[in-house]
Amino acid sequence: MTDFTATRALFDLPEGLAYLDGNSLGPLARSVPDRVARAVREEWGRQLIRAWNDAGWMEMPDRLGDRIAPLIGAPAGTVTTGDTLSIKLHQALSAALTMTDRPVILSDTGNFPSDLYIADAVARQAGGELRTVAPEAVAAALSEEIGVLMLTEVDYRTGRLHDMVALTARAKSLGIATVWDLAHSAGALPVDVAGAGADFAVGCSYKYLNGGPGAPAFVYAAPDVAGRIDPSMPGWLGHAAPFAFEPGYRPARDVARFRVGTPPVLQMAALDAALDVWDVADIVDVRARSLDLSERLIAGVEAACPDLALASPRDGSARGSQVSFSHPEAYPIMQALIARGVIGDFRAPDILRFGLTPLYLGEAEIDTCIATLAEVMDRRLWDDPAYRQRQAVT
Amino acid sequence: MTDFTATRALFDLPEGLAYLDGNSLGPLARSVPDRVARAVREEWGRQLIRAWNDAGWMEMPDRLGDRIAPLIGAPAGTVTTGDTLSIKLHQALSAALTMTDRPVILSDTGNFPSDLYIADAVARQAGGELRTVAPEAVAAALSEEIGVLMLTEVDYRTGRLHDMVALTARAKSLGIATVWDLAHSAGALPVDVAGAGADFAVGCSYKYLNGGPGAPAFVYAAPDVAGRIDPSMPGWLGHAAPFAFEPGYRPARDVARFRVGTPPVLQMAALDAALDVWDVADIVDVRARSLDLSERLIAGVEAACPDLALASPRDGSARGSQVSFSHPEAYPIMQALIARGVIGDFRAPDILRFGLTPLYLGEAEIDTCIATLAEVMDRRLWDDPAYRQRQAVT
Repeated sequence: MTDFTATRALFDLPEGLAYLDGNSLGPLARSVPDRVARAVREEWGRQLIRAWNDAGWMEMPDRLGDRIAPLIGAPAGTVTTGDTLSIKLHQALSAALTMTDRPVILSDTGNFPSDLYIADAVARQAGGELRTVAPEAVAAALSEEIGVLMLTEVDYRTGRLHDMVALTARAKSLGIATVWDLAHSAGALPVDVAGAGADFAVGCSYKYLNGGPGAPAFVYAAPDVAGRIDPSMPGWLGHAAPFAFEPGYRPARDVARFRVGTPPVLQMAALDAALDVWDVADIVDVRARSLDLSERLIAGVEAACPDLALASPRDGSARGSQVSFSHPEAYPIMQALIARGVIGDFRAPDILRFGLTPLYLGEAEIDTCIATLAEVMDRRLWDDPAYRQRQAVT
Repeated sequence: MTDFTATRALFDLPEGLAYLDGNSLGPLARSVPDRVARAVREEWGRQLIRAWNDAGWMEMPDRLGDRIAPLIGAPAGTVTTGDTLSIKLHQALSAALTMTDRPVILSDTGNFPSDLYIADAVARQAGGELRTVAPEAVAAALSEEIGVLMLTEVDYRTGRLHDMVALTARAKSLGIATVWDLAHSAGALPVDVAGAGADFAVGCSYKYLNGGPGAPAFVYAAPDVAGRIDPSMPGWLGHAAPFAFEPGYRPARDVARFRVGTPPVLQMAALDAALDVWDVADIVDVRARSLDLSERLIAGVEAACPDLALASPRDGSARGSQVSFSHPEAYPIMQALIARGVIGDFRAPDILRFGLTPLYLGEAEIDTCIATLAEVMDRRLWDDPAYRQRQAVT
């Protein structure tokens, strides 16, 4: 059983803050600063170029992949890390399209817009198209016209959870390749990419994996497909022998061919330290406690703030690790909350979003969030011009 | 006039090491550790998600681009940073191919293999091909069959320098778009992308710009072409309004549309600090002193090591900021040198490579390199089985 008092002690959170935005940027684990400082001062500063061998820099992309793998149900050697989620998605979609003669990607309208931009570009480059349907209509829209199904398991606005196992099975039965975006899943709830039979999965590590701002993305490729892929971005780091500097590209084994360029060592050092919490935390326990905290938040807000409408599924099993409410004035409401030390975020056009992250959050923060939100609503504290000034990042 | 004693004092180099590998990984500037620690502890740790606005994280990609711009002759607002060189090259080549109806990329056989892998993939995806000729044959191979010219200005093995101005002008006269890789140019010698009329340029920042292991790449897009590009990797960060989360992609202004995903804030913090040296260093002075040091190295090695053959152009104006020698036993020779505190690197199959980086190197290190190399050669110190054991990174 995971000891959540112990996991919380591993994080360095500012006093007096209820941080319910770990689904956007996870907080700083206490082990990170020294690990990063070591990478900077000792490895880079003292070992210099020799650190690629002596400090294990070259192995970092795959080693971090192997650390993330158990959280998403992936066998060792099937996950690597690097770049950003958009890049890894581009690679996975390009690879998936080579597995089919139907250059049509299906996704849903609730998907993260960037995923849709990338899918549209990749599909058009392949002479095909992206089609989107409402999240509820995905299963019915699967047909032999579709080549690739690309879905984000957890909707970034509502927290709605797709049935990954059922949808992947249905896609497979129709010869459709699958690409799952686990941005809001990895570290939030148990995922079983191998059990579901997904072909590819991608995700970022700065949300529930707490890897820090701009932390590298990850990509999973199923063993039975990875070795057959002709990579769309054949960078030197994905070559079978990067330092042979051969004139022609020979892909590295399996998922390692999704490596592209020089790995971001400092970001990877931060992620490496942040992943230590999973040595003492069990994702099944994290999920159970996240649902408990979510129920508490929903019940409390619904009781105290009648003007806020639950925008997430009420059934916990159909929801990721976030709870969203809608209100026409969501933007100034969230600004008023943030000004009072309760950090969630706003998502256009009208969503108040709260991430439930039991590794470092408990009942106290949930209750603070409810009480502060109730005060902001009751006293219309959000109705202040200062809270309407839009920030670059919302 | 640049004070090289002062610039040297800005770097933290291990005692007793002659580091002639700054062309592979630049050393640690003294300002970097605190800047990175601040990004980790204060910005990430204390400001958390609010740092995207309050610590200026969102502006980093373009702000760092503007800091690199003067070093490559680019106007403000025409350079952005992020991802890796391979990714930025993929984007630039894809963009360049949309400017022509001839899907043929011309490059040279001495180009960095990763550039050739990427170009081959991009050209094939566009239904065309990559053609390569010897570096000396590039000018003659330009014709109306070619759509895009992609060259690395400085050859990573020999240091041979292409005539960027002449080749770009010749390409332009034939309607050929140009993509220049400045990996071994930026921070090493004056470059004038705008003056030369290049359409695109890319480069990395961990070599002569000292940004650290895995530092972000940069991309330049000429103002007259940038705004017309339909990006091949339309990630959310390159959207005109990233946080509007619109279902359709609208590109950001000009080169900003080459941004893709969440910026690697910790790497960018390191690069930001490393670039401070250019506040007191002039690239024209750096180039002049690099050539002086190079002449000293060539003369010394040729006098002391008759078995080593100069593999770089003898004429300094035809050479970048490195000097290479060839020898059939180059691998163990370099290992023996490294074991004695002189760090250069080996490039397959037979190249000993030395980077001349006046910001932190002077006559003393050059003389140490010559004397140590002479001892290794005279006494055949390289002929030891330990030095033949191949490392992952060479």
